[in-house]
Amino acid sequence: MLIVKKFGGSSVADKECIFRVAERCIEDYRKGNDIIVVLSAMGDTTDELIEKAKMITPEPSKREMDMLLTTGEQVSVSLMAMAINSMGVPAVSLNAFQVAMHCTSTYGNARFKRVDAERIRHELDYKKIVIVTGFQGINKYDDYATLGRGGSDTTAVAIAAALHADACEIYTDVDGVYTADPRIVPNARKLDAISYDEMLELASLGARVLHNRSVEMAKKYGVQLVVRSSLNREEGTVVKEVVKLEKMLISGVASDKNTSRVSVIGVDDKPGVAFKIFNTLAKKGINVDIILQSVGREGTKDISFTVAQDDLKHAMEILEENKEALTIKEITHQDTVAKISIVGAGMMSNPGVAAKMFEALFNAGVNINMIATSEVRITVLIDEKDVERAMIAVHDGFGLAD
Amino acid sequence: MLIVKKFGGSSVADKECIFRVAERCIEDYRKGNDIIVVLSAMGDTTDELIEKAKMITPEPSKREMDMLLTTGEQVSVSLMAMAINSMGVPAVSLNAFQVAMHCTSTYGNARFKRVDAERIRHELDYKKIVIVTGFQGINKYDDYATLGRGGSDTTAVAIAAALHADACEIYTDVDGVYTADPRIVPNARKLDAISYDEMLELASLGARVLHNRSVEMAKKYGVQLVVRSSLNREEGTVVKEVVKLEKMLISGVASDKNTSRVSVIGVDDKPGVAFKIFNTLAKKGINVDIILQSVGREGTKDISFTVAQDDLKHAMEILEENKEALTIKEITHQDTVAKISIVGAGMMSNPGVAAKMFEALFNAGVNINMIATSEVRITVLIDEKDVERAMIAVHDGFGLAD
Repeated sequence: MLIVKKFGGSSVADKECIFRVAERCIEDYRKGNDIIVVLSAMGDTTDELIEKAKMITPEPSKREMDMLLTTGEQVSVSLMAMAINSMGVPAVSLNAFQVAMHCTSTYGNARFKRVDAERIRHELDYKKIVIVTGFQGINKYDDYATLGRGGSDTTAVAIAAALHADACEIYTDVDGVYTADPRIVPNARKLDAISYDEMLELASLGARVLHNRSVEMAKKYGVQLVVRSSLNREEGTVVKEVVKLEKMLISGVASDKNTSRVSVIGVDDKPGVAFKIFNTLAKKGINVDIILQSVGREGTKDISFTVAQDDLKHAMEILEENKEALTIKEITHQDTVAKISIVGAGMMSNPGVAAKMFEALFNAGVNINMIATSEVRITVLIDEKDVERAMIAVHDGFGLAD
Repeated sequence: MLIVKKFGGSSVADKECIFRVAERCIEDYRKGNDIIVVLSAMGDTTDELIEKAKMITPEPSKREMDMLLTTGEQVSVSLMAMAINSMGVPAVSLNAFQVAMHCTSTYGNARFKRVDAERIRHELDYKKIVIVTGFQGINKYDDYATLGRGGSDTTAVAIAAALHADACEIYTDVDGVYTADPRIVPNARKLDAISYDEMLELASLGARVLHNRSVEMAKKYGVQLVVRSSLNREEGTVVKEVVKLEKMLISGVASDKNTSRVSVIGVDDKPGVAFKIFNTLAKKGINVDIILQSVGREGTKDISFTVAQDDLKHAMEILEENKEALTIKEITHQDTVAKISIVGAGMMSNPGVAAKMFEALFNAGVNINMIATSEVRITVLIDEKDVERAMIAVHDGFGLAD
């Protein structure tokens, strides 16, 4: 078996952690498997490097920032190779240049285009454990570009896809994917399996167990993922194409407080106006999430939508600048909102799921602000202060607990 | 003018240092010059990384050690590029992969084979200040290999040679090359110029202003070096092919305490015995310096030679293991010895130089242990405790002071 294992920064934070990971890898290696390990930077290294850059200048060049940040993973992979070597097993560390992890050119937010298998295969042929720097790629200018936070998950999936790995294990500090965040919903249940689509919805909804793009890529290339704990031997959660339908329709409940509502009031009720508004925002890199359009006064429309809190200021500025061109009369916003979502592959073929959710929220006295749905998801916008209560109510309402 | 500037670790140790270097580079850039900057790792970074590795294992793999150490220079070059960028001047940092600094495969002690000019030229064409990681190369396995301590000097010279630079400036914490170490000989004088050969002798004799191999390479490719201070605007010392003979025959006096004497006693007086002894040591990577052979008892020979203190234990072991094969009766050693050397291009054509040195030492009551000479150097081995006294005596004896 060819197994790709990804460990995050907290799993390699110090000597003890490094040796714990080394042992785990060696264990599987001794069973006759080929092992590729993908690592993030140790502990808080990335934050410390960002700190260093900010000391030099408040707005460092993104290209140079990536040049700086990539050193973090290089340190962890070399130390891991030393640790595994010191335990008598051959190991070699490789950075993005050595593997040739080709990515797009956007510094700080690159995407993988192609991963060369040759160097890794060569080292595996020599029965080495291969340790690869996560989070980084090489762009067409032959420069480092990083993938953004959590990008090491994507590195693991990209390598698993390129080398047709038999398994891709993402090690984290939780036992797997839960029906809800156990810190909010104490009786949340660990899932044995979940489909890519459900996981995608959960990932993008703030369940921070897997990086969004890693799930997209896993789906695209059919890489079966396992999310499991680096601290114990629990089986974890398998993320794969089709999940045998259990009696449950809903896989999980997720919340996301990093959201703001923006409303543009009194825009012309003509075709193309909404398109223009969202196009203007998209061009400036603002992602819009839930959209709600309603009839306003005197033949005008009101449009509300949500953006990430970090983008709110920027979005407001853009709208203000283009107020006339976009025929906007007034712009309002609200910061204290949050999203609650239920995710489940069996949802759409089962009428009444939405109603059940709304009922649970109504019983808990939670007011619904906006609603959006997809194939495998229903999201409602509620007041931020209601999040915990709403989560528990919905989780209980669908009988998700153990 | 195309100028290569090299700054060591202490010149980029913190934010203030980084900006001081940035300003200095920008100053020359604004005069219309093309600027390439070669940097070492910040301050004690390299030592800290070595410490990290030793925490994992006392004998880390050399290949992985180089993978680890090269991150140090990558951090300094990216921060420097940010600093220069923040001052409104375009700059780009490049590591050994990006430049393509091809070197031999010996990890920890590689030598440059070929430096590609293309990427650097490309960036210079865009009027950028190009900042290159010192100390590191890429070997034929596509792995990082470092050049050993002080290797950044060599990086600067290799780049200057590859790009036919008009000047190669090595910035250090002293004003240039002195007739003797000013900490030992207070009235030592700064030299305006020195020849490659003299500098080579001084470098290998412990005058730590320039890395030995950098001078060799500069000589080979005719790269004119300037050694100058990063703290002031003094002219520094030019290192070049032919130096106009001043009235002085001697350029400087150097001392080196990192030396030990080994004596092998009673070896067969047959051809090839000495060769075998030194060949055995050379194969194990032990560099032998001064060699003295004398007639021993009953048709045997005694051979004494010096090795670096770090190599003493290893050398003794090797000799002990091969004692019979090398016909050695007894092995002795002495730790408390030091070398004093005078260096000067005009030396050999002027008889009496050696005599003058011995006279100065005799007058100072310093006993001479062994003597070795080259084209431009006379070295004597003396007792370690006599070093300071001997330095001052020889420096004065040749009238080297201001």
